[in-house]
Amino acid sequence: MAPLESWLDIDPASDFSLANLPFGIVSTPIDALPHLGVAVGGYVLDMKQLATHPDFDTIFTELKGQKYVFASSSLNQFASLGRSVHRAVRHCLQNILSVHTTVGHVLRDNGQMRDVALFPREDVRNHLPMEIGDYTDFYAGYHHAYHVGVMFRGSSNALQLNYTHLPVGYHGRSSSIVVSGTTIRRPWGQIRPDPSGPPIVSPSRKLDIELELGCLVSRPNNMGEPVPVTNAEDYIFGYVLLNDWSARDIQSWEYVPLGPFNSKNFASTISPWVVLADALEPHRTKAIENPTPLQGYLKEADANNVFDILLEVSLTS
Amino acid sequence: MAPLESWLDIDPASDFSLANLPFGIVSTPIDALPHLGVAVGGYVLDMKQLATHPDFDTIFTELKGQKYVFASSSLNQFASLGRSVHRAVRHCLQNILSVHTTVGHVLRDNGQMRDVALFPREDVRNHLPMEIGDYTDFYAGYHHAYHVGVMFRGSSNALQLNYTHLPVGYHGRSSSIVVSGTTIRRPWGQIRPDPSGPPIVSPSRKLDIELELGCLVSRPNNMGEPVPVTNAEDYIFGYVLLNDWSARDIQSWEYVPLGPFNSKNFASTISPWVVLADALEPHRTKAIENPTPLQGYLKEADANNVFDILLEVSLTS
Repeated sequence: MAPLESWLDIDPASDFSLANLPFGIVSTPIDALPHLGVAVGGYVLDMKQLATHPDFDTIFTELKGQKYVFASSSLNQFASLGRSVHRAVRHCLQNILSVHTTVGHVLRDNGQMRDVALFPREDVRNHLPMEIGDYTDFYAGYHHAYHVGVMFRGSSNALQLNYTHLPVGYHGRSSSIVVSGTTIRRPWGQIRPDPSGPPIVSPSRKLDIELELGCLVSRPNNMGEPVPVTNAEDYIFGYVLLNDWSARDIQSWEYVPLGPFNSKNFASTISPWVVLADALEPHRTKAIENPTPLQGYLKEADANNVFDILLEVSLTS
Repeated sequence: MAPLESWLDIDPASDFSLANLPFGIVSTPIDALPHLGVAVGGYVLDMKQLATHPDFDTIFTELKGQKYVFASSSLNQFASLGRSVHRAVRHCLQNILSVHTTVGHVLRDNGQMRDVALFPREDVRNHLPMEIGDYTDFYAGYHHAYHVGVMFRGSSNALQLNYTHLPVGYHGRSSSIVVSGTTIRRPWGQIRPDPSGPPIVSPSRKLDIELELGCLVSRPNNMGEPVPVTNAEDYIFGYVLLNDWSARDIQSWEYVPLGPFNSKNFASTISPWVVLADALEPHRTKAIENPTPLQGYLKEADANNVFDILLEVSLTS
């Protein structure tokens, strides 16, 4: 995709170019009620304010008058409108923010609107972007699973038998998902400093982080009616960064035989900005080859079924 | 507790005596909007209708005018009022329904109210009683854990090392909890009819049930602030029967190393009637003795910390 240039002053190194335009829930200096905003360069565009422009309905025709979703305190309503609406809204926003905008009077040449709808990102408060009903953690990272397996079972036996046959996952605690920046308390729990001795109760001594990609599902399916794998992407609203905080010493004692519990459910942090599924389309690529022939219900039509994106962690000890 | 006799015709063998009075969410022949009802004998008492009586606020003083909770489509609001309010409401209902009622004009001698507020149970439709935010399945049954362990590891090694030290549990999928009577589709999944061969995709051939007691928590705690075990019961609203449907053949293939997933999350059924915590107080007894000295944070002040109640399953193959 050709870079989209903006009349806004955007650092070329910014992750928040016009090609991205992630959505989030914000409070602004003039509107404390959480509502929808879009990150662009060093700014946040307030969608609730933008929607008050008299030409908004004419420009954002695909919304079919449902602009009330931008005043909601979560992205759930907007997400439920579906991929075609998200795509149309992205295109309208790219037009409004482009150097070649055809509707400059809405924002670029409208000082009054810019004053109430464009804020430096640091002046805006972020909230949890969605109400999350259920939370599943998939053991999706091949290299992660392999290296953990080597530690426990050696390299010839690293992956569990089922690993290349099906997505291995477990449910997490959705009420402990918090937005990035929330203070996390180091959890207490039962640990065994002497691996053959009895447990003691202590703050975790092996607090760990896992950099993960969180995927937000926007549409329900009826219970008992599977979603065909070829339609699965229609159910994805977007992606966030996720820190799957883990207390490894608590985990190794508690997790037999039913999986991780208190070691993982004390907090999971997600980024405030949801990158819509369409924004990642240009980054599709082929996944790591799987030597195991997949069962039919898992076979995807498009071989380019993963995203080639660079995720980074910086850690201060 | 002495049996409480009612002016209503209640079968002495009924589980729904005046000592029980479980709450649920119902639609009635004259009010299709789901709202609160109470099971008593073969009847349902409609709390939304009862609350329209002019003397309601005078009788149910502890509610402090919050009778709007009875028109809600879930028990969550009522549950959040706390144990002392639930107790007071139970006492008022026992008075209204007792042969010795001091307020016979409200229901017993009020044909008009009986017509709109008392229905045979079979004329009423039940709904899921609560909105469930998170769902944890504890491996709480000692005999269950022991016998499963014997099958896998023999009798000398039946219990996992951690079993007597801490509550072993894992998270389930809250969106697949449905009310008793909901049709469940037998799940498909990967199974291994030949335990050393590759998996096939098939309807589960080992669909199982687990009779469990579901415990509904009514109050939140702040993330990172533990609830002391001595206060834990203040957080319990009540109890339901729970059928933890399980696909054993899918489970044994998928559950290594992160625990049960699709084998358990296709449906969990709960009873429509929530037995309030106070109704079980007379049935307290001592738990099975634990040979392991518990850590301080798990030590309960009251040794009578379990309920001696009989649960029954009848199964038609």
